[in-house]
Amino acid sequence: MFKTLPGFREFCPEDFAKRSYIFSKWRAKAWAFGFQEFDPPVLESLSLFTEKSGEEIKSQLFEFVDKGDRAVALRPEMTPSLARMVGEKASGIRRPVKWFAIGENYRYERQQKGRLRAFFQFNADILGEESLCADAEIMALLIETLCSFGLTEKEFCLRLGDRDLWLYFLRMNGLPESYDTKVLSVIDKIEKVSAEAFLEMAQKALQDSEVDAEKFVASIKEFVKAQSLEVLEKYAENASEEFKNRLSVWRELFSMLDSMGLSKYVRCDMGIVRGLAYYTGFVFEAFQIVGTGRALAGGGRYDALVKKLGYADMPAVGFGMGDVTLADLLDLVNKNASEDNNIKVYAVIGSESLRAKALSVIFELRRKSVWIDYPLKSSNFAKQFKTANTLKAKYALIFGEEELTQNSVKVKNLVSGIEEMVSLEKINEYNFE
Amino acid sequence: MFKTLPGFREFCPEDFAKRSYIFSKWRAKAWAFGFQEFDPPVLESLSLFTEKSGEEIKSQLFEFVDKGDRAVALRPEMTPSLARMVGEKASGIRRPVKWFAIGENYRYERQQKGRLRAFFQFNADILGEESLCADAEIMALLIETLCSFGLTEKEFCLRLGDRDLWLYFLRMNGLPESYDTKVLSVIDKIEKVSAEAFLEMAQKALQDSEVDAEKFVASIKEFVKAQSLEVLEKYAENASEEFKNRLSVWRELFSMLDSMGLSKYVRCDMGIVRGLAYYTGFVFEAFQIVGTGRALAGGGRYDALVKKLGYADMPAVGFGMGDVTLADLLDLVNKNASEDNNIKVYAVIGSESLRAKALSVIFELRRKSVWIDYPLKSSNFAKQFKTANTLKAKYALIFGEEELTQNSVKVKNLVSGIEEMVSLEKINEYNFE
Repeated sequence: MFKTLPGFREFCPEDFAKRSYIFSKWRAKAWAFGFQEFDPPVLESLSLFTEKSGEEIKSQLFEFVDKGDRAVALRPEMTPSLARMVGEKASGIRRPVKWFAIGENYRYERQQKGRLRAFFQFNADILGEESLCADAEIMALLIETLCSFGLTEKEFCLRLGDRDLWLYFLRMNGLPESYDTKVLSVIDKIEKVSAEAFLEMAQKALQDSEVDAEKFVASIKEFVKAQSLEVLEKYAENASEEFKNRLSVWRELFSMLDSMGLSKYVRCDMGIVRGLAYYTGFVFEAFQIVGTGRALAGGGRYDALVKKLGYADMPAVGFGMGDVTLADLLDLVNKNASEDNNIKVYAVIGSESLRAKALSVIFELRRKSVWIDYPLKSSNFAKQFKTANTLKAKYALIFGEEELTQNSVKVKNLVSGIEEMVSLEKINEYNFE
Repeated sequence: MFKTLPGFREFCPEDFAKRSYIFSKWRAKAWAFGFQEFDPPVLESLSLFTEKSGEEIKSQLFEFVDKGDRAVALRPEMTPSLARMVGEKASGIRRPVKWFAIGENYRYERQQKGRLRAFFQFNADILGEESLCADAEIMALLIETLCSFGLTEKEFCLRLGDRDLWLYFLRMNGLPESYDTKVLSVIDKIEKVSAEAFLEMAQKALQDSEVDAEKFVASIKEFVKAQSLEVLEKYAENASEEFKNRLSVWRELFSMLDSMGLSKYVRCDMGIVRGLAYYTGFVFEAFQIVGTGRALAGGGRYDALVKKLGYADMPAVGFGMGDVTLADLLDLVNKNASEDNNIKVYAVIGSESLRAKALSVIFELRRKSVWIDYPLKSSNFAKQFKTANTLKAKYALIFGEEELTQNSVKVKNLVSGIEEMVSLEKINEYNFE
């Protein structure tokens, strides 16, 4: 017997319909916001990913050498491919670029609950626009997308951090710039490791600097607690000019989110710094605030990435939202659903001698875009009606001896039970609602 | 600079919209015929594919050993995974199983024009139903799908062969059963190689048999020319009982296709035998009869496969249709199109001081499912109207000082040019058609 690989899913129609429900909501919101869909290749040159994230990423990739001796990898994320696609068109493309993608990504991760090796992600990005409005628009799309599933501020929130503000804070605490990347990736771990482990990580990151690790960690821990604009304002009292200026950007952002009616979903939270080194400026993660409290989506500014990959200067902001935690949350709050593509009509064929006539009517109706199915082999009336019900057909279209001698068919509404004789000439115009 | 791998495509929004047009037609027809969508994993155990097709298939696969020491491969086709998925559910599943999939397959093939290494395929299959009606239904879906793109019998046809009839023919020509598979795979090449090469292949396949290769080849070449039911009927005059019986199945099939209004698309053609060993009974290929004459789709019965993979007995019939030749044909006959997901409304913001008000209206409208976009940075009127046109918006929603002092916005129909003042209270109910 054959099995799917660990961490991979197969979607039978029932699972597929659930997945389609999620994809269609994702797509509908992206369209309504003026985003356009793209799709990068599933398999790319390994270097596209190592260039962006360093050689370490290899351990998490499905990577191999193909029959043409190329080092290749299944995509672990869409962003590098997006950067290439937009980067290559950079000179001629209308800005802002508002693109989204829905596709599967692959990571060879240690098996654990809720972690898959193949998972779908909704990615939306705005490129070529540095204005704060782009940050607000991308956060708005994230929030409105979650709301379109019936989720409310009681079930999720957007935690908003700021790598720029962190940098100004680090400067105020005497940290030289060369330590920034290392220290930010340590701060990213603050919620994930014990206090002792965190101190140890910080000490390691600060090695050879003149910063006192214990004092520094205490000050970080305090700043991470800044979970409202008001608390940040207090920091501003004794802060550097750049820190103060950045806070006015925060105020502007919240005023925009207010106008959009979305500020109730957004929480200032300096604990959000995002692990990846390429983020700049605002970074955010959507969390469920019921159940496991897991992250639903994450994103932020990445103004330097496109240029880093060798293309034009292209400021950018975006997010990714996975299908697995979202589906789990929807299940938890009983808001999951399936795409409905049930057939409308089931044809009931009284006897095999009537099949030819039935087929000609069925195919005329199909050509009129009526969704209609029928038995592929001889079967009695009762069984055919049972099938009609199993398939959730709304109508039975009954071909019987009696009806056909009158040049008619019987239409039975399976919900109301009402039956109606319709002449064969008129059946093409019948309104199967 | 980074490039896509040879034979792989990246879909920017323009290409994606073309692809979506094709996918949406595929999906719509499958739904209307009562098929349900499934999706197998992109990566599977190598053995799933070698079990079905033999070790030789490895040379055509993207296959590698993953970090957990598993021999794995990107799927070259969907059928083995489908057989597993249905096979595993075989005891409890309602029959017939009517499933379809739209997904990418991967084959490491020699690079040539029109051949990609990653291509999309529409697969539709009926499992658990041995009746001839299932063959007719699957051929009908194939034909109606092509017709839904506006293609007619002048642009494509379905060439219908029959491996059963071939077997009876081979028996009549004295070939022992043990040679069947080898000989059929040679016959499959008849249109693809020269007469000399064909004779050579036949001689090799017939080695150690008592059949005279030259006579045998002549007789095959004659039979391949049987391209109508009438010609086959002539063969029947001196044929075996099983050959005669099989011909009555042909007649029954054509009579069904007649009832469906589809026989004009179908040509009897004993030259179609399909290369893969697992086919049984009717086999078919859809060909374009304009331009390059390439195959658009292919399929047939494969009654033994599910059982061969270790599951229950599950007769099956299906087809696969690729996106590349189809798109090429649609381009050729000027019947290609793109999915339309243009925004409906573009908001024009008179000055930055009005942005907050504009945002609140825009987001109210978005919540009412109006597709609306707006400038992310300060921009003059003329430029914003230009953007509205570029984005193919049907309406401009104009936020100006004058309008807002009257607590109103201006709605301009960009097609008719008609302008209308609408109060902010009423704009939520405006019918952006």
